[in-house]
Amino acid sequence: MKKYDIYVGGSFRKTSKALEVVNPYTGTVFATTWLAGAGELEEAIQAGLNAQKAMKEWPAFRKFQALSAISDDLAANRKELAGILTMESGKPMRYALGEIDRASQTFLVAAEESKRIPGEYLQLDWTTPGSGKEGWIKYFPIGLIAGIAPFNFPMNLAVHKIAPALASGNPIILKPSRSTPLSVLELARIIDKTGLPKGAVSILPMNRKAGNQLVEDDRFRMLSFTGSPEVGWNMKKEAGKKKVVLELGGNAGVLVSDSANSNLAVQRCLIGGFAYSGQVCIHVQRIYVHESLFESFSREFIKAVKSIRTGNPLDPSTELSVMIDRENAERVEVWVREAVENGAKILTGGKKKGCLFEPTVITNTTKTMQVCKQEVFGPVVVLEKVASFQKGLDEINDSAYGLQAGVFTDSLTEMNLAFDCLEVGGVIINDVPTFRVDHMPYGGVKDSGFGREGVKYAIHEMLEPKLLVKNVL
Amino acid sequence: MKKYDIYVGGSFRKTSKALEVVNPYTGTVFATTWLAGAGELEEAIQAGLNAQKAMKEWPAFRKFQALSAISDDLAANRKELAGILTMESGKPMRYALGEIDRASQTFLVAAEESKRIPGEYLQLDWTTPGSGKEGWIKYFPIGLIAGIAPFNFPMNLAVHKIAPALASGNPIILKPSRSTPLSVLELARIIDKTGLPKGAVSILPMNRKAGNQLVEDDRFRMLSFTGSPEVGWNMKKEAGKKKVVLELGGNAGVLVSDSANSNLAVQRCLIGGFAYSGQVCIHVQRIYVHESLFESFSREFIKAVKSIRTGNPLDPSTELSVMIDRENAERVEVWVREAVENGAKILTGGKKKGCLFEPTVITNTTKTMQVCKQEVFGPVVVLEKVASFQKGLDEINDSAYGLQAGVFTDSLTEMNLAFDCLEVGGVIINDVPTFRVDHMPYGGVKDSGFGREGVKYAIHEMLEPKLLVKNVL
Amino acid sequence: MKKYDIYVGGSFRKTSKALEVVNPYTGTVFATTWLAGAGELEEAIQAGLNAQKAMKEWPAFRKFQALSAISDDLAANRKELAGILTMESGKPMRYALGEIDRASQTFLVAAEESKRIPGEYLQLDWTTPGSGKEGWIKYFPIGLIAGIAPFNFPMNLAVHKIAPALASGNPIILKPSRSTPLSVLELARIIDKTGLPKGAVSILPMNRKAGNQLVEDDRFRMLSFTGSPEVGWNMKKEAGKKKVVLELGGNAGVLVSDSANSNLAVQRCLIGGFAYSGQVCIHVQRIYVHESLFESFSREFIKAVKSIRTGNPLDPSTELSVMIDRENAERVEVWVREAVENGAKILTGGKKKGCLFEPTVITNTTKTMQVCKQEVFGPVVVLEKVASFQKGLDEINDSAYGLQAGVFTDSLTEMNLAFDCLEVGGVIINDVPTFRVDHMPYGGVKDSGFGREGVKYAIHEMLEPKLLVKNVL
Amino acid sequence: MKKYDIYVGGSFRKTSKALEVVNPYTGTVFATTWLAGAGELEEAIQAGLNAQKAMKEWPAFRKFQALSAISDDLAANRKELAGILTMESGKPMRYALGEIDRASQTFLVAAEESKRIPGEYLQLDWTTPGSGKEGWIKYFPIGLIAGIAPFNFPMNLAVHKIAPALASGNPIILKPSRSTPLSVLELARIIDKTGLPKGAVSILPMNRKAGNQLVEDDRFRMLSFTGSPEVGWNMKKEAGKKKVVLELGGNAGVLVSDSANSNLAVQRCLIGGFAYSGQVCIHVQRIYVHESLFESFSREFIKAVKSIRTGNPLDPSTELSVMIDRENAERVEVWVREAVENGAKILTGGKKKGCLFEPTVITNTTKTMQVCKQEVFGPVVVLEKVASFQKGLDEINDSAYGLQAGVFTDSLTEMNLAFDCLEVGGVIINDVPTFRVDHMPYGGVKDSGFGREGVKYAIHEMLEPKLLVKNVL
Repeated sequence: MKKYDIYVGGSFRKTSKALEVVNPYTGTVFATTWLAGAGELEEAIQAGLNAQKAMKEWPAFRKFQALSAISDDLAANRKELAGILTMESGKPMRYALGEIDRASQTFLVAAEESKRIPGEYLQLDWTTPGSGKEGWIKYFPIGLIAGIAPFNFPMNLAVHKIAPALASGNPIILKPSRSTPLSVLELARIIDKTGLPKGAVSILPMNRKAGNQLVEDDRFRMLSFTGSPEVGWNMKKEAGKKKVVLELGGNAGVLVSDSANSNLAVQRCLIGGFAYSGQVCIHVQRIYVHESLFESFSREFIKAVKSIRTGNPLDPSTELSVMIDRENAERVEVWVREAVENGAKILTGGKKKGCLFEPTVITNTTKTMQVCKQEVFGPVVVLEKVASFQKGLDEINDSAYGLQAGVFTDSLTEMNLAFDCLEVGGVIINDVPTFRVDHMPYGGVKDSGFGREGVKYAIHEMLEPKLLVKNVL
Repeated sequence: MKKYDIYVGGSFRKTSKALEVVNPYTGTVFATTWLAGAGELEEAIQAGLNAQKAMKEWPAFRKFQALSAISDDLAANRKELAGILTMESGKPMRYALGEIDRASQTFLVAAEESKRIPGEYLQLDWTTPGSGKEGWIKYFPIGLIAGIAPFNFPMNLAVHKIAPALASGNPIILKPSRSTPLSVLELARIIDKTGLPKGAVSILPMNRKAGNQLVEDDRFRMLSFTGSPEVGWNMKKEAGKKKVVLELGGNAGVLVSDSANSNLAVQRCLIGGFAYSGQVCIHVQRIYVHESLFESFSREFIKAVKSIRTGNPLDPSTELSVMIDRENAERVEVWVREAVENGAKILTGGKKKGCLFEPTVITNTTKTMQVCKQEVFGPVVVLEKVASFQKGLDEINDSAYGLQAGVFTDSLTEMNLAFDCLEVGGVIINDVPTFRVDHMPYGGVKDSGFGREGVKYAIHEMLEPKLLVKNVL
Repeated sequence: MKKYDIYVGGSFRKTSKALEVVNPYTGTVFATTWLAGAGELEEAIQAGLNAQKAMKEWPAFRKFQALSAISDDLAANRKELAGILTMESGKPMRYALGEIDRASQTFLVAAEESKRIPGEYLQLDWTTPGSGKEGWIKYFPIGLIAGIAPFNFPMNLAVHKIAPALASGNPIILKPSRSTPLSVLELARIIDKTGLPKGAVSILPMNRKAGNQLVEDDRFRMLSFTGSPEVGWNMKKEAGKKKVVLELGGNAGVLVSDSANSNLAVQRCLIGGFAYSGQVCIHVQRIYVHESLFESFSREFIKAVKSIRTGNPLDPSTELSVMIDRENAERVEVWVREAVENGAKILTGGKKKGCLFEPTVITNTTKTMQVCKQEVFGPVVVLEKVASFQKGLDEINDSAYGLQAGVFTDSLTEMNLAFDCLEVGGVIINDVPTFRVDHMPYGGVKDSGFGREGVKYAIHEMLEPKLLVKNVL
Repeated sequence: MKKYDIYVGGSFRKTSKALEVVNPYTGTVFATTWLAGAGELEEAIQAGLNAQKAMKEWPAFRKFQALSAISDDLAANRKELAGILTMESGKPMRYALGEIDRASQTFLVAAEESKRIPGEYLQLDWTTPGSGKEGWIKYFPIGLIAGIAPFNFPMNLAVHKIAPALASGNPIILKPSRSTPLSVLELARIIDKTGLPKGAVSILPMNRKAGNQLVEDDRFRMLSFTGSPEVGWNMKKEAGKKKVVLELGGNAGVLVSDSANSNLAVQRCLIGGFAYSGQVCIHVQRIYVHESLFESFSREFIKAVKSIRTGNPLDPSTELSVMIDRENAERVEVWVREAVENGAKILTGGKKKGCLFEPTVITNTTKTMQVCKQEVFGPVVVLEKVASFQKGLDEINDSAYGLQAGVFTDSLTEMNLAFDCLEVGGVIINDVPTFRVDHMPYGGVKDSGFGREGVKYAIHEMLEPKLLVKNVL
């Protein structure tokens, strides 16, 4: 059985505490790695603080070279890496390959942005005291960063913390999910070859208690967390003086207007609703369709959902496979049952088979049901009819969350209305809320998050402005 | 009879050559001013070159104070100034008041932008030779500017040259139209009170021969011309080493889609088609209406045109009055006659009454008629039916000109298509091409112009970038 | 005795709890106002939430008009307002006038920036999934804001929260210091005349307990606090899901290089060290002078400090007067005594006379003395010799704080070194750290703060980005 | 003997007119290619106009892929390409390799910038007519571009036209120098492999008469010329309605202050003065040294110049070799003789040996000598003493040209003064004017040029802004 060393301040290491990694599809342990303890973490912190000085001296072209090389290496090893990712996460191979490609793209964008750290010029002579003076603003690395990444995109969501950190000249200690630590430890091997200063990146699987130090220790100048809302908001409270960026979940909605291209909406909702069993922060959880289109949309959508191919995630033809673990599959089962008991109707799916939950569409729901108001994080979609465009917007907004929303429409008025009203971080016109390319600003409002990621935007969060006022004598 | 001195290098002056100013409505001379000759121009040039050094030392807050004061003064004297403008141009009082208000706004925007001259920071360490270096770009005044303004907005189009010149720290010599030199000479009185360096602004009515020096003399670093295409393009050839910005005319089109709000389109086309007798660069000259709406649009539009109130421009209720002179009225008459002789049909209007040409709508035209292919610069609108949105776009593009276009639609697809395809400087969705606010970028492509105005954009054209590379030892 | 009503959701109001305001120079109560309780605060919150909807509909030009009008009104009443400010704060009249002028300028800048809310265009077609799509980012008001302002700039530091809030379209509830609530309640009268929606601004003096709701209540989307570090950092912990900006204190340093203009340094340090008895966040607390200049600098500086005119703050010739209250004067006395007992030497001053503390210069200090390591917030300056430029930078950095620093030098190398090394928010070359103009970014690093103010920068903190992705069909 | 086909609208082609290419070092013909005539040019124009439509549909990632592939291919073949470049130009191998590396970098930067075409958001509601409207500005390809490149950087100066044209979506027809057409025809082979639309790039050696069509034909929307001032300024006159960018020559100056690092100045002036025999637009032609440093600088500089290794350009140790042709070598000889006859003194060098002109330093010159006032474009440097920094700035400015200037100083005051006063496009502090990295803005003022190159800046010149005004109903 393969053993993966963890990456502590530039060296690969075993620890006293083994961590077994389970293949969710087979349910068996297929690899082991190690949990970092307080000692390894302290070592990584010291190495990070040291690396910070070295990184400050690096010209942009060396950062560019290192980040480009990582991007190329990911692309060159995409199949092998996707295989590991599929094994640890149960994510179908086709999506795992896409994730590795995106991680490669994320590093490429970071390479380019490392040459474009902004600076600003400021006229100061707007009043007498400023006469003869001018200002220049430059942006400096904020300092050691703590990153915490989730299981659902084990590679690319970790990369969304690591790549901007390096591009902005900051060392980072990343804690992957204990379920899915392996692909990112393979990334550590790739990073280690680039000649980045030792300690620039550490990858430390940890249990929650050890991980708390990432939140509380003031030597970290920033915490970047992707995960569940409850955990995230509590971290904000415990984070001391450091900056906090939270990428949390949601129950994203789609609105299909009567002016929409209904076929397109069906096809896109199919992907947005069921890719990786809905274990996606911007999974399509709620679809609202204008009543004039509802019947046809519903018929076509159900038909499409029924045709989803389930099976072994390593099989390239598999479209949907197991959930990450039994607990989650059971949770979804309970929520669906609760909905049905309160009057909801299952249009297709609804059953759990081991860790696989069938692609499921429900209607006749109410706002208080967990499948509506909570983040379902499973292959379950709520489909409802609305009497008008405005009512559809109201439905989407009637939520504690606000990550992204999708709106299918050809009306300029409706587009403007949607963009103006929807309480979300991103409004996607004629595509699902699940749309994300890696250089765009990404993040939620309301309970869905705090701050933004997306390479350039993450870099900006990782920089501290400093003003130079020059009194020209 | 009132006599207006011209403004030469900071002093008000008579010359040896009187210029009589005619009220186009009464046809009588109501005031006189003076034509500058080579001597006055040389004096203004020298004063301008001297002023340039003084202007360079001014902090932004002094520029701001001067430009704000002019803005306030224009607002405080709007009625008196609008009266003079109406007398010299025949522009109805309601539009003359609007023009003074806009001139005040143009100076206000220039005041604000004078504090926001851009600067840029540039990382240079993208390759080894740039390591340890950084770049800063600042923008410096380009030097003495020649401005040539037309009769149709005697105040605001002159202000669109003067205000950005001052905001960017450049002296300017402005030649107004010989038909309409008075309102801008009143502006000179206002400018003179601000304490700007003598020579920062000169206002010199000139005949064409003297004016040619503005084009050819290399001491001018920039020529900003608003006027007719033939004159403008020839100037570009004769301009030597200086920069040239040309704001020329067009035959602007409107397209009304079947998804449009037809009432809105009618109301806006009425203003766009007939304000100041169509003597506007972005006058609505050609309207293309989707066949499904054509009948109703046509009926409502004709009805509205027939209700336009004509009369003495000083009467506040007058909506349309005389054209600038007899020659122009006769030219329009000839062009309309040519169209009719070749098969066009007059839907309303079509007659000349002295210098007043009736508000006129024509249909059944062909592309070769002068009312279609030339800039009509008169109260004549061509109204045609189109079979599809794409055909309407093609019609608008089938022109040597490309200033602005208006598109009435509620379709997102159509908006995108229009923005992508239309060969113009500005696409106005749900309003007429006549739309202009003074801080927006404004200017044409194809034969309609070269470069952009609009305060910030004009300022940018009047600045020269300079790069500072700092090798940090 | 004059009574000032508080400003609750657009109406002026008395409450059940009077607040007496003391003139620090005479020590007598000269006016009363009222403390808001939970009821008034709730009313203000409801009015703010209502105002938010109305504010969203306001076009920029109405915001501009309202903010400009406030700016003009402050300028027109500068003497009267400065008089009130001097009475409540003991700030010498000359500085009080300057503060009103700056508050007027802050509103002017906010008026201008209200027309310049940013937006961004984003190409999305960097990979296949983004093909055919484009992104636009707009910035929306964040929501109800809680502002907490200190006593030392009772008007302008409150304005630095109110003006950006209005410019960005957000309602704000401002809690002034209980010592100095009057000038800002006069501002409320001015604001009330502008026709802004009722509830857009509330001004509520409160005791600490009632004030805690500003920190904890999640209906506030942002807390902007200016005050002491301990209070500020604790607020960050208690702030729940809201955004927090903290403008805290420091112990700002100045470094005088051997290449410096020493006379200039002396003159500027005199102002920076003793304006408003050092009760300024960016007060010059520590001066480090290169040994080659130390003797002459020290001699000239002491001479200048001795010539400072003390007396009644209402007397226009007074340069230094009482501190805000007896407690603070006594605290400074204790700190100075502690320093002397541990070996420091007083070069001039050192005595308390009632609430007035003499302008004081100390040398031979050590880093552990409170006059060095704490924020002295009194008219006390530490003056020390350094052997090299680098040592001077190290001294400035050897502090828990990092607001601004001043460096007097003519060496390009030294300027670059200082900008690169100094751990502060702003490095002022050839002026004191006390330099601030109201449109520049302002704020500290380390324990000195979190986030930035300065009109445009404060506005940016008060906006939430929203991305529109447009799939062009 | 190798024969190189020319590249016409996507196909490689012979013509009826052969062009022999001479190796300047051996004086013998070593390869032939072809001159394009009117027929080939017309074909290339048609292919370009067709390609334009195809290029408009390309998403950014395809442009990025093509431009990156070219960059990689240049890097992979650097030695071979540098060999050809050395053969055709006589440029020493070490510099030829550097040029290929830079061309690769120029394409890399263009690849990155092709994903960053700007767009702008504009609030329009600054006055009543703009209420309810908003503006978006996008930038569209300008159309077919004519590029004319010189012999001195046969590859990289051609690439500075081709790469931005492709990045901005414009087809380009490039005319290389007839002396050095080969390396860029090798580039054509590389471009041809990328799958760019046929006609996107044509490479056509032409005689001057055929080349004139590039200037005069209105189907070209832009002319980008790098070459001599006389030719360039005349083209501006003949260019019709198209946009013109001129990158011309100069007689760049260096100023060495008494605060300078003199050793650094000597080393950098050696490179700046004699790289490629001074046949560089930003060649160091005039050095002004503060009198306090003059003796030592002069001594060290002459010593260094004497140690320059001359010889066969293919020999990697050669630092200076032949000039491009006999005419130029003779011209330099005449100019040096003229200087000496009028009182100048040769400090080293001064002789012509075949086509090689010795590295030459002259002093005691006057402003009217051709070695001072004209662009010498040969290995000749004028070295003079100045009594003050300001006098040195005056000397540099006393020229018809203004490309770049170098200033060696450690004084902040001097740096500011130099940046403020020098009439040039770029001021290089602590390096020679010869400094250029490929992404920086580059171009001259006065007679040295019109407009800017440098990838992003060239792209900007090749785009036309279009405003979308959206009236939100």
